[in-house]
Amino acid sequence: MNDKRISQLGEKELIRILLDKRDNLLDDNISPIVLESYHDDAALIENQDKYTVLSSDMLIEHIHFPKEMSYYQMGEKIVTVNVSDIISSNATCTSILISMALPPELTLSQYQQLTDGILDKCIEYDVRLIGGDINENDEIILSATAIGAIDNNIKLQSNIHKGNYIAVTGNLGSPAAGLDLLNNNNVDIPEEEKKSIINSILEPNLPMDTSQILKKYPDMITSMTDITDGLAIELGHLSDKNRNIGFEIYFDKIPYNKYLNIIAKENNKDIIDYLLHFGEEFELLLTLDADLYEEYRTHYDNLTIIGKINDSRNITLIRDNVKEFIKIQGYEHLKG
Amino acid sequence: MNDKRISQLGEKELIRILLDKRDNLLDDNISPIVLESYHDDAALIENQDKYTVLSSDMLIEHIHFPKEMSYYQMGEKIVTVNVSDIISSNATCTSILISMALPPELTLSQYQQLTDGILDKCIEYDVRLIGGDINENDEIILSATAIGAIDNNIKLQSNIHKGNYIAVTGNLGSPAAGLDLLNNNNVDIPEEEKKSIINSILEPNLPMDTSQILKKYPDMITSMTDITDGLAIELGHLSDKNRNIGFEIYFDKIPYNKYLNIIAKENNKDIIDYLLHFGEEFELLLTLDADLYEEYRTHYDNLTIIGKINDSRNITLIRDNVKEFIKIQGYEHLKG
Repeated sequence: MNDKRISQLGEKELIRILLDKRDNLLDDNISPIVLESYHDDAALIENQDKYTVLSSDMLIEHIHFPKEMSYYQMGEKIVTVNVSDIISSNATCTSILISMALPPELTLSQYQQLTDGILDKCIEYDVRLIGGDINENDEIILSATAIGAIDNNIKLQSNIHKGNYIAVTGNLGSPAAGLDLLNNNNVDIPEEEKKSIINSILEPNLPMDTSQILKKYPDMITSMTDITDGLAIELGHLSDKNRNIGFEIYFDKIPYNKYLNIIAKENNKDIIDYLLHFGEEFELLLTLDADLYEEYRTHYDNLTIIGKINDSRNITLIRDNVKEFIKIQGYEHLKG
Repeated sequence: MNDKRISQLGEKELIRILLDKRDNLLDDNISPIVLESYHDDAALIENQDKYTVLSSDMLIEHIHFPKEMSYYQMGEKIVTVNVSDIISSNATCTSILISMALPPELTLSQYQQLTDGILDKCIEYDVRLIGGDINENDEIILSATAIGAIDNNIKLQSNIHKGNYIAVTGNLGSPAAGLDLLNNNNVDIPEEEKKSIINSILEPNLPMDTSQILKKYPDMITSMTDITDGLAIELGHLSDKNRNIGFEIYFDKIPYNKYLNIIAKENNKDIIDYLLHFGEEFELLLTLDADLYEEYRTHYDNLTIIGKINDSRNITLIRDNVKEFIKIQGYEHLKG
């Protein structure tokens, strides 16, 4: 049965399999009319907050899924990349719609792994799968829209001021190093470190706990984004939206797994390429009011200050006491 | 310049071109914070109605776009199919997010035709393009999520009762016949009829005016859907959701362009194949309270009654005084 090709089942049966699983996961306090809408052509959200926030991202097999990635991990990733845009607006992600294009030769078992990855991540992030579409294509394409609820504490990206701190969650650079490890595993570092670094590209996670805490400190945050395009490009985006300021990053403050130095050397790369110019990181990049952060840090140590806002209008990196301009580069689709 | 490949421009510039055009179309009364969010990673909607309603649909070049379809028409179609699901929930579509996967060899001029098609349809339907994503792929893939606002007058699909009328907007069957005309244009019917029938597959339109009027008659409507999968399949869906009723369709009441008979004959098809089993129709299928409809028809003639709800638990077609069961078939992805 599980070896059956999905073309033997058809779209309707595939949707039924997915919705049956999904329905079992829905909580009991969902209103009947909203529940019923999940089986109609359009899904309802009851508006309880002042704003709804939405974001869409598409993932294409040959671009976004390394060949080592399992179907389960592909399902996880489409949820993670989309929820990331919502939590990095300081909102709570409530719902997601996912459209899939699938190859007809996919087996039922592979389809079930894919949908398990989707639904397990939805459970982890407390997000409901409320809609989508299934199509046929040579390779897997997953396209989603994530929906969040937000009250008045909206975090736009244009409120940065001189003197603000620049902060990140988690460690940077591991997804870039993980991809190099997938291509060349012959690097002399402990196996569990290898596994964890590779895992950061195959099974990225969101800083949900920190994100929950940050919601209680809206005044401290002057801007917020995820780092999916790489730290340098994200700083470039923030610079575009905040004209009279500059960004100063201290290399020795950037948090990263020290084994990345060995992987970079083995691959003839500068560690800076991993830390600044790759992306696929689902950590948060924040600018913070300095005084309010000093108060925050007496309670929490989940952020790392990596730089400061000045009025230089430049993006600079200070490394070994030398100041250099950061080139705004990273991966861009349809370029080159 | 316009012959440039989009791979010479890159994702960032392509997004800028699209957003510049879009920004020029936005009305002046948009709140500054909402406007600014359209340039951040996630877009805001101010919640003014009790419910938000959402639907996603993906279109893939080799499946959904006949080779005669222009880039402009592809852009139009992704908006139309998504807005259709919202208006057929009796909601007002307000916003749309569109993710695109584009071939690198697409020219700037072709890209601009595609985005003009998107934006022109957004203007026509009074819908704002608020987000999306651009990626690279061999063929064009367009994936969208449409968002609507709705108060308490939600139209779910499970409120059908015995004695209700079955109604449709517009003419049926033309998209199916149009596709046959694209493949074999050697049919002896007037050129302007040919053009209009072909146009129904290349440039489908939504019954927006009727949809606006129907919003004022929520009690009359007991269910509502579009006919994208074909009348037979849509009746099947409604039957699944309404257990103790049956559907009786009168063949001689189904509205269609009479030239379809000639096209069907030329292609060795039964006209029923066009009218019931093809889809790609963006007309509305409704069930109506009979008494309230009798009152409505004294004001409006924009609906055609094609049948009646009985308690047979079957879907039947009466043609030339003969009753036959309607086979629930139409196009299904990933089947066969």
